[in-house]
Formats: sequence, structure tokens, C-alpha cells
Amino acid sequence: MSQEILIGKVAILLATLEESETAPFQPLLKGVHYCRGKVGAMNMEKVIAAVETAATRENLITENLYRENHALYHAILEALEGVTRGQFAIGDMKRTVGLRFAVVRGRPYTDKREGEWIAVAFYGTIGAPVKGLEHEAMGLGVNHI
Amino acid sequence: MSQEILIGKVAILLATLEESETAPFQPLLKGVHYCRGKVGAMNMEKVIAAVETAATRENLITENLYRENHALYHAILEALEGVTRGQFAIGDMKRTVGLRFAVVRGRPYTDKREGEWIAVAFYGTIGAPVKGLEHEAMGLGVNHI
Amino acid sequence: MSQEILIGKVAILLATLEESETAPFQPLLKGVHYCRGKVGAMNMEKVIAAVETAATRENLITENLYRENHALYHAILEALEGVTRGQFAIGDMKRTVGLRFAVVRGRPYTDKREGEWIAVAFYGTIGAPVKGLEHEAMGLGVNHI
Amino acid sequence: MSQEILIGKVAILLATLEESETAPFQPLLKGVHYCRGKVGAMNMEKVIAAVETAATRENLITENLYRENHALYHAILEALEGVTRGQFAIGDMKRTVGLRFAVVRGRPYTDKREGEWIAVAFYGTIGAPVKGLEHEAMGLGVNHI
Amino acid sequence: MSQEILIGKVAILLATLEESETAPFQPLLKGVHYCRGKVGAMNMEKVIAAVETAATRENLITENLYRENHALYHAILEALEGVTRGQFAIGDMKRTVGLRFAVVRGRPYTDKREGEWIAVAFYGTIGAPVKGLEHEAMGLGVNHI
Amino acid sequence: MSQEILIGKVAILLATLEESETAPFQPLLKGVHYCRGKVGAMNMEKVIAAVETAATRENLITENLYRENHALYHAILEALEGVTRGQFAIGDMKRTVGLRFAVVRGRPYTDKREGEWIAVAFYGTIGAPVKGLEHEAMGLGVNHI
Ligand SMILES: [Mg+2]
Ligand SMILES: [Mg+2]
Ligand SMILES: [Mg+2]
Ligand SMILES: [Mg+2]
Ligand SMILES: [Mg+2]
Ligand SMILES: [Mg+2]
Repeated sequence: MSQEILIGKVAILLATLEESETAPFQPLLKGVHYCRGKVGAMNMEKVIAAVETAATRENLITENLYRENHALYHAILEALEGVTRGQFAIGDMKRTVGLRFAVVRGRPYTDKREGEWIAVAFYGTIGAPVKGLEHEAMGLGVNHI
Repeated sequence: MSQEILIGKVAILLATLEESETAPFQPLLKGVHYCRGKVGAMNMEKVIAAVETAATRENLITENLYRENHALYHAILEALEGVTRGQFAIGDMKRTVGLRFAVVRGRPYTDKREGEWIAVAFYGTIGAPVKGLEHEAMGLGVNHI
Repeated sequence: MSQEILIGKVAILLATLEESETAPFQPLLKGVHYCRGKVGAMNMEKVIAAVETAATRENLITENLYRENHALYHAILEALEGVTRGQFAIGDMKRTVGLRFAVVRGRPYTDKREGEWIAVAFYGTIGAPVKGLEHEAMGLGVNHI
Repeated sequence: MSQEILIGKVAILLATLEESETAPFQPLLKGVHYCRGKVGAMNMEKVIAAVETAATRENLITENLYRENHALYHAILEALEGVTRGQFAIGDMKRTVGLRFAVVRGRPYTDKREGEWIAVAFYGTIGAPVKGLEHEAMGLGVNHI
Repeated sequence: MSQEILIGKVAILLATLEESETAPFQPLLKGVHYCRGKVGAMNMEKVIAAVETAATRENLITENLYRENHALYHAILEALEGVTRGQFAIGDMKRTVGLRFAVVRGRPYTDKREGEWIAVAFYGTIGAPVKGLEHEAMGLGVNHI
Repeated sequence: MSQEILIGKVAILLATLEESETAPFQPLLKGVHYCRGKVGAMNMEKVIAAVETAATRENLITENLYRENHALYHAILEALEGVTRGQFAIGDMKRTVGLRFAVVRGRPYTDKREGEWIAVAFYGTIGAPVKGLEHEAMGLGVNHI
């Protein structure tokens, strides 16, 4: 395997598992930077902002450095493709999301010239704006940073 | 929570984790039917066929009952949106995938009138058709069956 | 033909034809449940809500049963793909729609194990938000329920 | 109504109805040129070619006049959005189509400066490449010519 | 070459170049009608309106003639596909655009039966709603009119 | 302006202009690395390969360094969105392309921490697989590298 740290897998587990379930995976968190958060929203913009704000606050990306913001932004968009599955909209389509997310930054490849990469994962529910009329959704985006 | 069994989460874990890592999650597998498989491909059709074949062989869906094939097919497509993130193509876009997948069928909702649902998850790599020039990808689709 | 009742065709005719033109097709309405409605809107959410409200009020789907709401929702989305043809937006793209719609629920297949399916059809106009600067549009979505 | 001839409605009816059912709609065919055809395929290219060939052979468009070919081509693509609902592929997605189509050319608007327009409609089935595992699909595209 | 006037190229240059840089290309402007404009926006509707308003005011299209408005509208949409690259949204995706645009109308083909065509080009920046966190974007749409 | 070198604009001009027309823009080429090429194809894969091969051969990206291949790949895909405008396919949609392309690598931002970025531009024709039945198309993709 050319990847020694699976930042995508780490992001998926951090987004999908409850805090109490993550214990067996602590070794995977060695050597990466990460943050977690939650967002409930009927618009995409709020979801994107929640991830960007968390990643900036936790120093996963450098504020006002466009290079890093750009890498994160496209990773978020790719992850949202998985959540929205074909139409890039939430409230406009009369649906709402309740998501947990994780951002992971690290050096996945054994060849150190590959440098740092970033992974964004979402896990939660998507559905009608009525309590309980919803099913699970998930998305993962990965980018070089 | 209106869902007592998270078939999507189970599918994600079965697709993402190594066999050896799934031990702590055995209790989650109670009360669901599932199967796992692997597929490497440069075309979508082969990926879809691999999941359909595994699910039929493991009796997760009834062969030749269109209702169940239709439910599975749309769940696969939704999961592939997450894997392909915006363009529904693999080899046509000069990329290849190596994926592990899981199909989970069960009754997620506490209200038993909600009946059975099916979840399909993929996890693996996507990238150039050159060993190692690839990153992780993931997708989840959920449908009523 | 494996289908004895063409619920999609019935939905198309109910959406496309004037009340006065539907007489020759009364025999097709035997054995199905259906409703019709109209909606003019510049946002997707309002169009989706109009169909859901009509279908719930006419008892085509069971209120608060997610299984049936989910089946209808995806049928509506698929029908809207035909109406919007590539971009899932109305007012955001400076266009407006005036649509007649029909929802049809029935057992299309000769094999009774196939159970019930639902079809949603739209027919009307789409165009600039200026009277008359518009052309016809149509869409059909079909799902198992 | 600013349209006196509904070329889209005519195309929908010609594609959806059996020959024997079209009798009541003969008056709608006054003042338009139209053709009908059938195509079964697992690739988009064959579907597009079938419509173009029929329309050229029936003199609905002028061969080798790009202006008219371009108008027809985009009308076909828009109609196929309705048939494929979100992913522009057939066999690549392990599905097949059996479609009846109609092309209608005429002057829909009361204001004669609006000139000629063209409508393309498809109606038929889409599904797994297994007899009977399929449901109905429909699409309509309209363009100025 | 079957095209003697490249209206697309003219539109690209008018949108991309500063006024002072267009001098060498004055000969290309012979025989076409064109206009230029600027728009900064966080919603698609405002961008579309800016181009339509400019084209109408400069008499590139005939006001209230749907045929011409329809041709322009689809050319704008195609150009915006290049600007937005996959998701037809701006502010909903927490991004903003600052664009220069050009609309060019002319007879590109040597065969005069091909008649008039219209090209719309955008050039500018797209990015986060923070000064400087942006990169360049471009799009071109071409249609028969 | 936060960008002192417009790599996107340079790529657009190199792709759009004939060799003889580029003289006035020589100063823009200072401080960037670039290459140009041509490709005619009915499949996406061949277009992607043509750009990757040219960029690798001209040392614009480091062979087998995934980080750089990944940056280029996504820039190519974004540029192809502009060329294909909504459906990511060429021959599958019965169309063909004849494109000139340019790849430009440089440091666009005044803030040197922003590092290197890459731009890919296409310009040429798209249309039916019949000589002359085609119109112009363009696309631009920009990414951090
Ligand atoms: Mg990637
Ligand atoms: Mg769903
Ligand atoms: Mg279906
Ligand atoms: Mg239109
Ligand atoms: Mg075109
Ligand atoms: Mg970008």
C-alpha cells in the first residue's frame, strides 16, 4: 500500500462513530491533525461555513491563506456530493440535514514528497423537514493541501 | 431517535473496516442481513454488477423480483455519487477504482410500519490507472425496499 | 408485456390532457388511485410541497409514514429532472414554471409480488418570468412504494 | 395563452399513445410536421442517432444544415434528461431502454415572428438488462429552430 | 474551415482582455454586433439578468421576442456551466463571482443559410466571500438565434 | 488586485489565439511555465491523456508525484465542464471535439505564501461527427499545486 495513514478512513470513523466508540481507533489518530463538529441546516452555505469555521478555529487550515482554504473548500464540496447524491441543494429541495463532520489533515503517503492532504467526512441524516422522516447520509472528500 | 438500527452506519463500518477491526461492532449486526464484497474496475457497469451479484447470491434481495432489484439499484447509484463526486464515470474519465462494499438490509425504524430498508456503502481508492496515484473515496446509498 | 397497468402513461395523460380530453382514457383509470393538481412557482420547494400536499390529502400516501413519503419524494425529484433538464433550479436561474401534475398509485405488474408503485408526472410551461416567454416542459418519475 | 399549437403536447401524445389511441387527437396534428420512431439501446449514441436519422429522412430538418441539426440535437438531449433523470448514461449504468419517440416541428406561438420550434418526446421503459425488470420513462425537449 | 467569423473567440477576447489590450483584434469585430458588461453577484439570477439586460439595451436581441430571448438564455446557461464547473450555484455554495462578460451576435458560417448565432463569454474571479480568496473562472456558450 | 500573474488569462490566450496573434502578450508569459497542445477525440479519456502527457513531457508536473498529478487532473476536469457544458461525455453523446489546449503553472498571488497554482484551458470546436456541423467551445480550470 502506498498510503500509510488513511486520512479518509480516519475522517469517516470520526464522523460516523459516537465518542464512546472511537477508543479502539486511537492509534489511527497518531500523526494527524483533526477536528469534529455538528451542523443542522436547510442550506448548503451554512454547512460549508460550519466546517470552514471549525477547521480554521482548530488551526487545521491557515486563516486567509487562500491555498489552504481552496483545498478545504473543494474537499467539503466533494463530501457534500455524497450527502446530497446528485442535486446540490438542501432546503430548495424541501429537505433538511443533521450532520456530524470531521476534518483530518496529515501525510498519508509513504513517499514524503507527497506532502499534506486533507479529508472531510460527513455522517448524519437527510430527509423531510419533519422529525423522523429521514434516513442516513454520508460523504467523503479528499484533497492535496 | 426514530431509528433503532442504523443500517447506513453498519454498511459504512463493514465497507471501511478491516475484518479484524469489526469485532467491537458485532452487536450492531444483530437483526440485519448483510454481505460484503470487493471490486476493482474502470467501468461503472462492473461495479454495479458486482454489488447486485453479491446481494442476490447472499439472498439479500429476491432474484427477478423487480421491486427489490429496483430498490437496490437506486441505493447503489446513490452510493456511487459519493464515490464519483459529480461525474458519473470511471474509465471514461481516465480513472480507476478499487472498492470494498457492503449491503445491509433491515428494519431501521422503531415504528414497524416503516418496514425494511437497504443500505449500500463503498470504501476504497479512486485515481489514475497507475499504482499508488490514488486517494480514498466513499459512498452511501439508502432506500426503502 | 410484464406490465398490465401503465401507471406512468396514466400519470402523463392526466397531467397533459385537459379534463375534457380524458374521456377516452377512463378505462385506464380502473384499478389505480390518482390525484391531479396545479402549481405555479419560482422555487422547487413549492412545487415539491404542492405535490406532497395533494397526494397526502387525497390519501395516495399515508401521512407521517416515511416509507411512503420517501417513495413519493424520489418520484417527484425524478419527474423534476425532466422539467428542469440538467439544472435543479427554477427562480435561481431566473425562470418560472406553471405546471399541472398527477400522482398515480397502483399495481402495474402482472406478477402480484411486485406490489404497489407510484408515478408522478408534470406538464406545463417553463420560461422567463415574463408572460408568454416560455415553452412546454414535462417530467415523469416512477418508484416502488 | 400565447401558444396556439402545443408542439410539446403533440410530441408527448405521439410518443405515449398507441396508434389506435391517437384518433381523438388528429385535429392537433394540423399545421405541424411530425415523425415517429422506435429505438431499443444500451447506449445514448444509438438513441440520438435514431431520432436524428428519422427526422432527417422525414424532412423535419434539412440535412447538413447545422443550424437545424443543432436545434434538434439540443432538443434530443433535453428530452433524454427526462428519460435518464440525473445521470446521462444507459449501458454504462447497467440499464437498457426501449423507447418510442416523436419529433414535431411547427409554429406554436400566435405571434408569427416567433417562427418555428421543434419538440422531441420519448416514452417507453428503462431498467435492468433483464426482460421485465423495468419501469416507464419519459422525456420532452423543446427548442427554437 | 467552415466558419469565417469566430463569434466565440471574439466573445472570449472581449470578456478576457482589458479595453487597452483589444486593439490588435479590432478587425475581428467587423461584421458582428457585440456588447460588454460587468457583474458581481452571489446569485445566478443576478448574473443572468445582467447579461440579458445588457443584450436587450444594446439591441443584440429583440425585447419580448421569445425566440431570441430563448437563444440568449441557453447560451448564458452554457457559459455559466464553465464558470461554476459542475454545481449550478454561487452564494448557496458560499462563493461569490466578479465577472466581465461579452455577448456577440453574427453569421459565423461561410454557408449563409446557417444564419445568425450568438455567443456569450464570462471571465473573472470566483471564490470565497472574502477579498482575495478567489481564482479565475471562464465560460462560453454558443447558440443559433 | 491580489493576483499579479493571471495564469488563467494566460492559459485562455494560449489556447484561443493563433501562434501569430500571441506576440502582444509575450510579457504575460514571463514568470510562468507553460505548454500547448492539440487533441481531436470522441472520448474524454483521450482528451485528459493528451493534456497529462504534454504537461508531463514539458516538465510542468513531476511524473509519478500524485500530488501534482491530482492537481492537474482536477484542473483538467474543471476545464472540461466548460467544454461539455453539463454532460460529461463526448462520443457517448454522438459528438466530437477538436481542441487546442494550454497548461500554465506559476505563482499568481502577490502573497508568496500562496505558492504555485496551475491553469488548464481548452478552446476549439464541438459538434456532430460530420465536418463543419460544429460550434466553438471553451473551458478553464484552476487549482493549487
Ligand atoms: Mg481527487
Ligand atoms: Mg432518499
Ligand atoms: Mg428507477
Ligand atoms: Mg429552453
Ligand atoms: Mg450546442
Ligand atoms: Mg476552485
